[in-house]
Amino acid sequence: MNFREATRRDLPAVLALLADEDEVVDPGSVVVDEASERAFASIAADARNEVLVLTDGDAPDGVVIGCLQLTYIPGLGQGGRERALVEAVRVRADRRGEGLGAELMRLAVARAGERGCGLVQLTSNKRRTAAHRFYEQLGFARSHEGFKLSLTD
Amino acid sequence: MNFREATRRDLPAVLALLADEDEVVDPGSVVVDEASERAFASIAADARNEVLVLTDGDAPDGVVIGCLQLTYIPGLGQGGRERALVEAVRVRADRRGEGLGAELMRLAVARAGERGCGLVQLTSNKRRTAAHRFYEQLGFARSHEGFKLSLTD
Repeated sequence: MNFREATRRDLPAVLALLADEDEVVDPGSVVVDEASERAFASIAADARNEVLVLTDGDAPDGVVIGCLQLTYIPGLGQGGRERALVEAVRVRADRRGEGLGAELMRLAVARAGERGCGLVQLTSNKRRTAAHRFYEQLGFARSHEGFKLSLTD
Repeated sequence: MNFREATRRDLPAVLALLADEDEVVDPGSVVVDEASERAFASIAADARNEVLVLTDGDAPDGVVIGCLQLTYIPGLGQGGRERALVEAVRVRADRRGEGLGAELMRLAVARAGERGCGLVQLTSNKRRTAAHRFYEQLGFARSHEGFKLSLTD
């Protein structure tokens, strides 16, 4: 298994994971639209944002089976340490139940720690109760309510 | 009232607000430590982060009575739109109950909308039930659980 920053070559596989709810989406079938292209370039150019992929096998160019995004947020609290925000955590539908999600999260937390972050935070939809147990087992405290306001309705 | 990006001159007043739980902290008594100095410079230099202040009166250099931080997060979802994360919302202890918090949040949401964000999100500690009603009244959906993992314990 490898855990590394996604490159432009990984974008179809990452978009396939984001589109994958319960069935595997073939990266070969993904059309990379201009908005995704631009968003990926923005993330890649930003030193405080990264899309990370978990790949199968020992070679770094193995098949992408998981992904997440980390955002490092500077702030005035916590002695000036950044906090890491985790978004868009995905494991490929046919590879769930093998502990890959936990591995992905552990690698992300370790990465944030190596960078010097004081905190890792994320939100999970209230309906996803299995995910809540998963994050608690990883040591996260379910201490906050998560609020969202859509601006596109 | 003015709503604008904080400058280095506002830093003591912002740190006073962050230290203010139930009693006003005099900005004149705040010693700006090196970590805060560095963190503020990082935020000011980052096009996706800003500390915003609400000031009293018509002049833009009025007394700081509220603040918050906005982080604009690029992502592959939502047609490539950024989402805005709100952190560190504060209103000065002796000015609460006047609707300034709602005004501050409305201005922040409007700012995120003008920038083209698709979503505004925040988390609030589960103990702060009055804050939860406040965010719901502003139109936020309490749809998520917020998880935190401290890396400094």
